[in-house]
Amino acid sequence: MRTASEIRVERLRAQVEASLPRFIKPARDDDGRLAEAMRYCLLLGGKRLRPILFLATAEMFGAPATAIMKFACGIECIHTYSLIHDDLPAMDDDDLRRGRPTSHKVFGEALAILAGDGLLTIAFELMSATGNIDAITEMARAAGWKGMVKGQAMDIYYERRKINPSVLRTLHRAKTAALIESSCVSGALVAGADDRERRAIRHYGRSLGLAFQIIDDLLDVTGEEKLAGKRLRKDAGKATYPSLFGVDGARRRARIETAKARTALRTISQDDSLLNHIAEQLLNRQY
Amino acid sequence: MRTASEIRVERLRAQVEASLPRFIKPARDDDGRLAEAMRYCLLLGGKRLRPILFLATAEMFGAPATAIMKFACGIECIHTYSLIHDDLPAMDDDDLRRGRPTSHKVFGEALAILAGDGLLTIAFELMSATGNIDAITEMARAAGWKGMVKGQAMDIYYERRKINPSVLRTLHRAKTAALIESSCVSGALVAGADDRERRAIRHYGRSLGLAFQIIDDLLDVTGEEKLAGKRLRKDAGKATYPSLFGVDGARRRARIETAKARTALRTISQDDSLLNHIAEQLLNRQY
Repeated sequence: MRTASEIRVERLRAQVEASLPRFIKPARDDDGRLAEAMRYCLLLGGKRLRPILFLATAEMFGAPATAIMKFACGIECIHTYSLIHDDLPAMDDDDLRRGRPTSHKVFGEALAILAGDGLLTIAFELMSATGNIDAITEMARAAGWKGMVKGQAMDIYYERRKINPSVLRTLHRAKTAALIESSCVSGALVAGADDRERRAIRHYGRSLGLAFQIIDDLLDVTGEEKLAGKRLRKDAGKATYPSLFGVDGARRRARIETAKARTALRTISQDDSLLNHIAEQLLNRQY
Repeated sequence: MRTASEIRVERLRAQVEASLPRFIKPARDDDGRLAEAMRYCLLLGGKRLRPILFLATAEMFGAPATAIMKFACGIECIHTYSLIHDDLPAMDDDDLRRGRPTSHKVFGEALAILAGDGLLTIAFELMSATGNIDAITEMARAAGWKGMVKGQAMDIYYERRKINPSVLRTLHRAKTAALIESSCVSGALVAGADDRERRAIRHYGRSLGLAFQIIDDLLDVTGEEKLAGKRLRKDAGKATYPSLFGVDGARRRARIETAKARTALRTISQDDSLLNHIAEQLLNRQY
């Protein structure tokens, strides 16, 4: 039997899935297949983790999901753009994503680059509909040159260079944790949480994001390609948590970060059962 | 002797030039050369037309340039990102920009893509500092999948297809005019202009943007590469205003759009001398 938290996460996911196709309609006038390319990767499914974290945090502080769904979809547009650009031949050169050919395989490189650009831009249009400028600043910082984009630049730079644990942590924090952290913090911001609450949520999101990336590294070693829907074992030779600390060492670190995330929630008085559930779910995920 | 308007434009340009380097500092921590790649193209100079239009419009409605300089620089970041991505091998494959090697020639394709992504993202961070959410929405729409990104997608799509004058106008409006139009409108928005004033500014910006692109097409045929700082004669075989209407026909259309831009200004009571001057200057530019 499914728990109440499982049902709530599933409901949020269904709401995101139902909303995403509304904002990018197939073009009626001629746009050179751009809308099609943007919809392709966005609507391939996925965990929808970041918008779910945003909505779950906002609901916890009293903001109903329906009023802020555009912001949630904007966050997923940012995540999807990053997947499309990361998969490009000049970057990670991946052929498979969510069990399907990657965007540049289907639409060509030019249109894949533009689909990413279009998704990153519409994200800010969608997020601005909520009218909360602090949340926009938060997301722009996390996605940008001090966050996710920097993480990808570091990832490429260190592909053929030695890396130490401290730089690897900076890399993971920028590449993955920043966006996860800011999705949570933005949820707190649009719901009007106070300073102390926002700080707690930031600590939760940061540790959760690090745990998420460590598990990702682990699944690259131990996971099943069929479940993952993407090529695995491609980190061989790259510095990752398993390569620096071993599989058991990496798993222990993921558990520690998850515990830190859950501890951060204890300082706030709202019902944190959903965020706790998500943290456990991510730690035990198989893909 | 220089006119008062020439001096004012030059002063705005100098303010933009002085501000741009402040927001992307060379990285102290390790970012895989990302900050360097972002600064490279951004600080190569250029007309700085879009931030100047934004500042000139805002000043006309009473907002001092110093208070909104971050927004102006954000607009230039959007423009620069579009140049970097358009120059990529998968797109227009250009080697030269502003008299220097293009970003992917200097930093490689991966870092050029990421530098563009970083500039597009920091644009929204900078623009959000002004606190005007309507202006952010305006810019996101203009830069996005219904505006500039769509224009570039159409440009690539029609490279080897027949185009008619009506579709070419749609293409130019999306690719070039939208961002110019919204730079002006955002200036009006941050300065608190009313509906009627914003409509007038929108008409001004739209016609100015179309005239700008027609002149760009003309300069590709008649201009000097040394002045332009980029490869010319590359539109040969592409549908452009000169190829559809001849050089004289295209020039006449640029004059008509400039006249429409100036007429739009007559409906507002503010001092429009600077915006009029810019319209004339763009019509007569040699690069």
